Amino acid sequence: MKIITTIHEMQQTVDELRQIRKKIGVVPTMGYLHEGHLSLIHLAKQHADVVITTLFVNPAQFSPTEDFDKYPRDFERDKKLAESAGTDILFTPSTEEMYSPDYLTYIEIEKITGVLEGKIRPTHFRGVTTVVAKLFNITKPDVAVFGQKDAQQAIVIQQMVRDLNFDVRIMIAPIVRESEGLAMSSRNVYLSEVERKESVVLHQSLQLAKKLIEHGERNCSLIISEMKKLISANLSAKIDYISITEAETLEELSVLQDGNQALISLAVRFGTTRLIDNILLTI
Amino acid sequence: MKIITTIHEMQQTVDELRQIRKKIGVVPTMGYLHEGHLSLIHLAKQHADVVITTLFVNPAQFSPTEDFDKYPRDFERDKKLAESAGTDILFTPSTEEMYSPDYLTYIEIEKITGVLEGKIRPTHFRGVTTVVAKLFNITKPDVAVFGQKDAQQAIVIQQMVRDLNFDVRIMIAPIVRESEGLAMSSRNVYLSEVERKESVVLHQSLQLAKKLIEHGERNCSLIISEMKKLISANLSAKIDYISITEAETLEELSVLQDGNQALISLAVRFGTTRLIDNILLTI
Repeated sequence: MKIITTIHEMQQTVDELRQIRKKIGVVPTMGYLHEGHLSLIHLAKQHADVVITTLFVNPAQFSPTEDFDKYPRDFERDKKLAESAGTDILFTPSTEEMYSPDYLTYIEIEKITGVLEGKIRPTHFRGVTTVVAKLFNITKPDVAVFGQKDAQQAIVIQQMVRDLNFDVRIMIAPIVRESEGLAMSSRNVYLSEVERKESVVLHQSLQLAKKLIEHGERNCSLIISEMKKLISANLSAKIDYISITEAETLEELSVLQDGNQALISLAVRFGTTRLIDNILLTI
Repeated sequence: MKIITTIHEMQQTVDELRQIRKKIGVVPTMGYLHEGHLSLIHLAKQHADVVITTLFVNPAQFSPTEDFDKYPRDFERDKKLAESAGTDILFTPSTEEMYSPDYLTYIEIEKITGVLEGKIRPTHFRGVTTVVAKLFNITKPDVAVFGQKDAQQAIVIQQMVRDLNFDVRIMIAPIVRESEGLAMSSRNVYLSEVERKESVVLHQSLQLAKKLIEHGERNCSLIISEMKKLISANLSAKIDYISITEAETLEELSVLQDGNQALISLAVRFGTTRLIDNILLTI
């Protein structure tokens, strides 16, 4: 596995690879890799000759009150995991390499970045879209893989790719879960033992919603209120939101209709740790 | 000369050209070509194997009160001129091809888009940067050529390219003028005979500023007031702004200092037609 830290070397390297007709896959990550990330690398490997994993904790997607400084980092471990999963090139630029002191440019997506996560984290998605556009211009991929865990991010990135005509195929890999159902996340390390135990309720609440819908329930407020009841039984859980939306437009649904692609998503705090999870259902 | 109207065919065509190591140059235009545009095509031809001229009147850079609908168009004439100047591929997409009904994404550049033209036309530059980013993703150029006539646009595009890491070399071609000094512009056709005559004062005022500076004048308000006096002697002229700024940051200068790269720029209305012009000077 080759490690590249400068934009110039990365662009030159992919130019040479493309010249010999290698198909490039990219997996953008903020590091502290877990099995979720590794599944993205595996998927990229199936659809590309050369897999670039990028490892960059992107300051532009954290607000000043968020956990940028204490976001977990472990470069040596990440290096081993990325390589063992099949990464060919690890791109790990410094903050200064990615954002010069006179940096001024941001990619803004209207409507779909103002709801759910974007409502609570108003500058988060412009940070995400901006860094992803930069990484696309730096790694010039044929295929890019993101995780369904960050459902809204996946939708926002697909909108950006369509709108700005990036010639990149976007693949969304399914959520990888711990054995008890908690969605893998770099932030899970923040959880206390009690919080960790209680957090499995997120997956349970999504399964409950799925079961209710399978049994014919179509009223979204009723489904959400059943989920709330289940989650609130856990003392350390504080719900940010539970939402049922149309999966592409992120417009809130009040009654589920046949043919709807519904995204049920939630954000819940356990102590100071904010977890998100979701399920996609075709009605 | 090949004419391409769809994004998909354009991307496929450049992929094939890059595969056989052809260097791609792109000249983005809104059509109604004049000698200024042709000089951009000539410059691109010197630095690329294949020159793509794009011809697209971009609605996103016009405000609702501006001249999008009546912007001059003449496809047959443009086709001939583009070909005679050395264009290999003419890319002429429809508005619907470039902006789908659910379009949501814009590229915003802070600070330098809020002054000069951006102050008077608040959404203009996000329209420009957005369409240029799209055209870069569609034509995947090695080199892109823009005109110095739109000085702020040239600065804004160079900032975007640096910030978003587009792997494209930007070249800025000098202003082409009519024999009496009026800068070439597609909008010159709007001018009445009297306005056309009076409009040569724009170039004269820039030359006056240059002479004052060459004779040692360093006080910017004084230079601007002399320019205003000259322009205002023309009855049909209404000054929007005359400005002296540092050329890269677009920060206003009050006193010129040795080593400054100064941009003297102006926008003046003649009747309903708004003309811009500028000069770059190293002090």
